[in-house]
Amino acid sequence: MEFSSKLIEKAVNEMSQLPGIGKRTALRLVLHLLKQPKDQTVFLSQALVAMRQDIKYCGSCHNISDSILCEICANNNRNHQLICVVEDIRDVMAIENTGQFRGIYHVLGGKISPIDGVGPSQLNINSLVEKVKSGTVQEIIFALSSTMEGDTTNFYIYKQIAESEIIISTIARGISVGDELEYADEVTLGRSILQRIPFEKGFKNN
Amino acid sequence: MEFSSKLIEKAVNEMSQLPGIGKRTALRLVLHLLKQPKDQTVFLSQALVAMRQDIKYCGSCHNISDSILCEICANNNRNHQLICVVEDIRDVMAIENTGQFRGIYHVLGGKISPIDGVGPSQLNINSLVEKVKSGTVQEIIFALSSTMEGDTTNFYIYKQIAESEIIISTIARGISVGDELEYADEVTLGRSILQRIPFEKGFKNN
Repeated sequence: MEFSSKLIEKAVNEMSQLPGIGKRTALRLVLHLLKQPKDQTVFLSQALVAMRQDIKYCGSCHNISDSILCEICANNNRNHQLICVVEDIRDVMAIENTGQFRGIYHVLGGKISPIDGVGPSQLNINSLVEKVKSGTVQEIIFALSSTMEGDTTNFYIYKQIAESEIIISTIARGISVGDELEYADEVTLGRSILQRIPFEKGFKNN
Repeated sequence: MEFSSKLIEKAVNEMSQLPGIGKRTALRLVLHLLKQPKDQTVFLSQALVAMRQDIKYCGSCHNISDSILCEICANNNRNHQLICVVEDIRDVMAIENTGQFRGIYHVLGGKISPIDGVGPSQLNINSLVEKVKSGTVQEIIFALSSTMEGDTTNFYIYKQIAESEIIISTIARGISVGDELEYADEVTLGRSILQRIPFEKGFKNN
């Protein structure tokens, strides 16, 4: 792609380094900014730089936060003995939206993925293991994506905390609510039969 | 969407004002930036602000440019009597990529679109009309999108320059090269029959 202006070229190149944004999309976004008031570009840039430079992580659960402890960890009405292990802030938001979880979280910051060069040391695993060993935890719920990387990460953590006398659980896998059976994949459908639950319990959870 | 940090919230809100980027995508992009070195965010922001504040437009064709005249207008090897009227810089890039056009461009900066509040006065139409009236132009090619807005804009300009003794043409509409006839829409197929060209000419253009 040849641009008639170096300024455009540079902006497009930087923009297209974001995931899922190619050169064409980047150009469309950049031209959109050109048509808007200058303020919009300035505000966007300031917000991004401020976010990147001043962001803090909760000292306990590693969730993104504006203070030393995130709102969830600082909330005494939540069950601090029940920890849900998730990949990142988006998963925290998704689970919070369900309104079904009253424990606290532990944000790993990713999954073990040798292909992407992410090893256990880059994730917040040690602090989780320490928390478990300190004896204040009753139950850990693994809520990572159901992928090879997610399973590997679960298993890696499991091996380190298996000797502790805590309950280790994982979120249920099965047919999504509203899904037609015939379109479900075989693995999910198979698991949902093997891991069937008493009818009354499934009914109550609705 | 509730965020655990005001910084994230602000960055996501600004990001999601870009066209085609919703809150979820914005959050994904912002979290990506968080995982990258700080420099990437700083460079992106600087490139956007520099682009928005220092961008210049070619004094002749209104293309985006780093100097007073864009490279195309400053090129004496190009035919300055042949002007291709386009909507924005992307169209210039697309036509330049074909290598088939040796004239110069005139960038309108948009199309007449009452729905979006864009009238003729917001577009670079007057300078085009003046150029035509100055008598230095031999032919004008309309290369706007084949939409209601594009046709309206073409017609608006046409009315103002119709009295000049120049050739006014428009790019050919027809079946795309490689397209199957049965999947072409009726209007395009109909036009391609009405506006058929001598077989030898079509063959040569390949």
